[in-house]
Amino acid sequence: MKKIGLITTGGDAPGMNAAIRAVVRIASSRNLHVLGFMRGWEGLINNVFNPLTPRSVSGIIQLGGTILHTTRCPEFETPAGIRKAAETLALNNVDGLIVIGGDGSFRGACDLSKETEALIIGIPATIDNDVFGTDETIGFDTAVNTAIEEIDKIRDTAISHERIFIVEVMGRERGFIALTVGLTVGAEIILVPEEKYKKEEVFKTLKENSAKGKKSGIIVAAEGVGDTRELARDIEKSTGVEARISVLGYAQRGGSPTGRSRLLANLFANEAVNLLVKEQGNRVVGLQNGQITSISLEKSCKSRKPLDFSLLTLADMLAT
Amino acid sequence: MKKIGLITTGGDAPGMNAAIRAVVRIASSRNLHVLGFMRGWEGLINNVFNPLTPRSVSGIIQLGGTILHTTRCPEFETPAGIRKAAETLALNNVDGLIVIGGDGSFRGACDLSKETEALIIGIPATIDNDVFGTDETIGFDTAVNTAIEEIDKIRDTAISHERIFIVEVMGRERGFIALTVGLTVGAEIILVPEEKYKKEEVFKTLKENSAKGKKSGIIVAAEGVGDTRELARDIEKSTGVEARISVLGYAQRGGSPTGRSRLLANLFANEAVNLLVKEQGNRVVGLQNGQITSISLEKSCKSRKPLDFSLLTLADMLAT
Amino acid sequence: MKKIGLITTGGDAPGMNAAIRAVVRIASSRNLHVLGFMRGWEGLINNVFNPLTPRSVSGIIQLGGTILHTTRCPEFETPAGIRKAAETLALNNVDGLIVIGGDGSFRGACDLSKETEALIIGIPATIDNDVFGTDETIGFDTAVNTAIEEIDKIRDTAISHERIFIVEVMGRERGFIALTVGLTVGAEIILVPEEKYKKEEVFKTLKENSAKGKKSGIIVAAEGVGDTRELARDIEKSTGVEARISVLGYAQRGGSPTGRSRLLANLFANEAVNLLVKEQGNRVVGLQNGQITSISLEKSCKSRKPLDFSLLTLADMLAT
Amino acid sequence: MKKIGLITTGGDAPGMNAAIRAVVRIASSRNLHVLGFMRGWEGLINNVFNPLTPRSVSGIIQLGGTILHTTRCPEFETPAGIRKAAETLALNNVDGLIVIGGDGSFRGACDLSKETEALIIGIPATIDNDVFGTDETIGFDTAVNTAIEEIDKIRDTAISHERIFIVEVMGRERGFIALTVGLTVGAEIILVPEEKYKKEEVFKTLKENSAKGKKSGIIVAAEGVGDTRELARDIEKSTGVEARISVLGYAQRGGSPTGRSRLLANLFANEAVNLLVKEQGNRVVGLQNGQITSISLEKSCKSRKPLDFSLLTLADMLAT
Repeated sequence: MKKIGLITTGGDAPGMNAAIRAVVRIASSRNLHVLGFMRGWEGLINNVFNPLTPRSVSGIIQLGGTILHTTRCPEFETPAGIRKAAETLALNNVDGLIVIGGDGSFRGACDLSKETEALIIGIPATIDNDVFGTDETIGFDTAVNTAIEEIDKIRDTAISHERIFIVEVMGRERGFIALTVGLTVGAEIILVPEEKYKKEEVFKTLKENSAKGKKSGIIVAAEGVGDTRELARDIEKSTGVEARISVLGYAQRGGSPTGRSRLLANLFANEAVNLLVKEQGNRVVGLQNGQITSISLEKSCKSRKPLDFSLLTLADMLAT
Repeated sequence: MKKIGLITTGGDAPGMNAAIRAVVRIASSRNLHVLGFMRGWEGLINNVFNPLTPRSVSGIIQLGGTILHTTRCPEFETPAGIRKAAETLALNNVDGLIVIGGDGSFRGACDLSKETEALIIGIPATIDNDVFGTDETIGFDTAVNTAIEEIDKIRDTAISHERIFIVEVMGRERGFIALTVGLTVGAEIILVPEEKYKKEEVFKTLKENSAKGKKSGIIVAAEGVGDTRELARDIEKSTGVEARISVLGYAQRGGSPTGRSRLLANLFANEAVNLLVKEQGNRVVGLQNGQITSISLEKSCKSRKPLDFSLLTLADMLAT
Repeated sequence: MKKIGLITTGGDAPGMNAAIRAVVRIASSRNLHVLGFMRGWEGLINNVFNPLTPRSVSGIIQLGGTILHTTRCPEFETPAGIRKAAETLALNNVDGLIVIGGDGSFRGACDLSKETEALIIGIPATIDNDVFGTDETIGFDTAVNTAIEEIDKIRDTAISHERIFIVEVMGRERGFIALTVGLTVGAEIILVPEEKYKKEEVFKTLKENSAKGKKSGIIVAAEGVGDTRELARDIEKSTGVEARISVLGYAQRGGSPTGRSRLLANLFANEAVNLLVKEQGNRVVGLQNGQITSISLEKSCKSRKPLDFSLLTLADMLAT
Repeated sequence: MKKIGLITTGGDAPGMNAAIRAVVRIASSRNLHVLGFMRGWEGLINNVFNPLTPRSVSGIIQLGGTILHTTRCPEFETPAGIRKAAETLALNNVDGLIVIGGDGSFRGACDLSKETEALIIGIPATIDNDVFGTDETIGFDTAVNTAIEEIDKIRDTAISHERIFIVEVMGRERGFIALTVGLTVGAEIILVPEEKYKKEEVFKTLKENSAKGKKSGIIVAAEGVGDTRELARDIEKSTGVEARISVLGYAQRGGSPTGRSRLLANLFANEAVNLLVKEQGNRVVGLQNGQITSISLEKSCKSRKPLDFSLLTLADMLAT
């Protein structure tokens, strides 16, 4: 292993830059050269890269986003695109490729692995936390804390106006953010895409709360649970309490990474470079049972990470 | 002047609690009793209040929202409702009433002033900054900083994905937040309700920026400027660059007040109590040319606070 | 198990209130009554408590500090004091006692356990993270993030003035905070009490950095590593670079808890109540290998939690 | 006016980068070239600069510190040093020089103005707010808010442990930060260097507070008021209450500037360039009575900005 490629793909996540810095510096200490391909798969297809050195990744550990940029790349979804990416790797004598990204990125990496001899390692970085093989992804903790800070503010208005607020957090298909955020802001109700909710039960809970003297309330909903605007209207009709919506948008994807997101970035990068140095590839690094480890890229892509439903039960108990 | 009433009305704003604390403590040092009526006009109509003492407002200077709560009160928009409010003041021997709120609150206060002998003083507290007679309202600075922090995060994603982001800030009719926020996040374009914008000019600016090498951009738009979803689609069509929307919601209304919002709360409260002690009423306190002062309640209600358009010109220059 | 006592002892930590809320609400759902003794052991000795209900712990999940207060209690270090605490438990028919605190608190709990029939459960909450039996304590993640945010600010000045900054974080005897913070702010050097440092090596590293073009630097030092003021002077003498000190003080102990500190509070409280319901006592709950579990109170008190020195090696590699 | 120089000198302040960006972009729109001299006076003496263009100041509006760096420069305090700086200006055909800095910087600028034909404009940027001729300097509002956020955290511990905290904020000679911070965190006592305090009065106030039921308290002290460590010991002796110290250090000087600091940066930069375009020099721009204006450099240097003592009286009333 002498030269490795590095890309960030999919949606950006806080801590990607910390991971870039860590990959480059650890690789450098192992005498590996690092090429940073720009804009994810697109840079790989079009052979657009910058050599990265310990100095060129200085001062980025605390920055959101990714200095390598990332973009959607439909061409990479075609066999021709994948072949071009593989050719770029061969052309530059790249022996290993580290892909920093999420679930979708790793499916692309899996396809590419069949066309290249370069060893591929995935570093899970996505606010969605939906990568099988790791208990936590880089960026998840930051997104959760960003959402918590906003909801703590919204609660001021909820209490002052004695209203119900439905706060929509990111998560089109998965409820990891909604679940953790709901549990930690003390939400009265948490709605996740993995479990279809019944409006009647929402109304019932809110009415019971009202009877107990709770005049305001927070419902944390993943964006994938359906039309929250309609839900708000129905809550007003059914309970007589004012309901408002707040959609926490793209701010959840940015911002300076938390300590935990930065720490995972360092630890994952270390493991990724270690694997390449040992000539092991086609794996996704991760945190399992508190330990840094890795699983096969293919297994990660083909498996669905389960949501811990017992936490929903706990949340119900805590929202008493 | 022996006994004064205190209410918060309209939308809540960060710093209302600091103002409540300041009114109570300053009034107390002048030997005035303070009754805190709950839920704005509603508490005044229904005679629901708590006596407030220096100790009972302890530990609230840093809290968002309002411990006196606030709510919409359609009954107060009727002559009967206003009369009931006036009767409550008489019943409790309230000589002065301090109304902490915004533009709409002061119109209500103006109506009430014609039915009561109690002297009324308005303290401008609204994130919208749209009260005539003061250069700045309590809560405005906090809302601006909350929006700035979120947009600084969104910019991470804008740059990493090389996208245009339209960020919608609060302001249905007025562009004070949009203008200050746009100017201070370095927005490429600022859209305010006071000035109808031409889509063609937006496209032109974005294309010029692109030609200069700016691959991403932030458009800060007040919510009152029209359909931003449609604008995003049209930008994509016209420029070929991806455009996304982020609506900064209710978080702008909450959160711990900034130093400036707390300072204004202290200074406005001081002036309000001073006026009452001097038996002056039906005035709105404010900041004018850097000085704490007041104008007549009626003038404040009937005048429209101008937006400083020269700042838009400055913003254009800065977005070069 | 019908009635349980609850105290917070030792230094306060962000997330203690979240733990109080969780204990009370979970206990209540299991039909247990909760008495909140005030000011730690002092309240237990003097029988000063408030009954806690799901409503009385409302709105505290996001607050730093502890609503039960905490104080040093020399009397509890005497046999007489411990007996009085045991008598209070008997007097009030308290079957179980949950102690939220750190290392020192659990040693006190251990002593008390020998004098009472009440079952005692420890919930680890301390910013120092020095409790054996748990990979992480409530409050640690918050303290780390508070320190990171401050050091990210200090770095602005370090770079602008081309200076070395020695930043002292909390940790008189243990380096958990210093290590995690140093690793995640990208510190050039990390100093922990567990490992005596040689000044000559510090100077050498700084000179090498300077030769590489690094004109500024951050040294993160636990407060227990010795006189940083002297170190700063010696650095200036040896390297010719200006060195400054910043002591991050008590702010690390306060503030709104992060998501992770709140989550641990919920999970630890759940396990603590579960143990009591199963009539198991004299245990400390914790996070081990990513799972919520518990160990014996005695073992926790008598064992020293190891610091992961491999992280120091990783930090060196990353500071290249 | 064709070519202007730009430097940042003295201690760095949040918003200096926003001011650099604004100067460069506004100057550029007026067809002026800008040379950014590095490290303050040192770069001017040694003729070290970078040409600055609208693109080269992109993405810095939100950054603390200064991309032009700043350093102490003893050589500039000698006639020879000043002459060399003047020669650099002449050598590069620089017609105008904008100095972003504080009180001390402007005294240096005053000396330089006597040796050069270049017109000099000062932009007040210092967290200390001690520049005569402006009600507020760039960076002051940010420093105040940073201190407030920290003290809001410290208050958690103060309340939980029922302690007195003496919080030392920056300000060796002036109490602007201490006064504003004290007033806005609700400090029980504020100590400023402008007014010698009597320990007996501090003890008396604390005892009265204790009698009123206040079990904790915050004293905000400027660093210039004397030995706070001794004061803490004396408070413990005199009142029997535990007292602790927290020194808010260099974090006050860094961090992302607040909206207000950024806005002032934009407005001051605009005025500074306007003056140069009109061939007016040797002035300091500022905010007076809510308006952007300027005064003579000499007057600014020779006058002492007064502290508003009436705010101390207000603070006393509010701390009831």
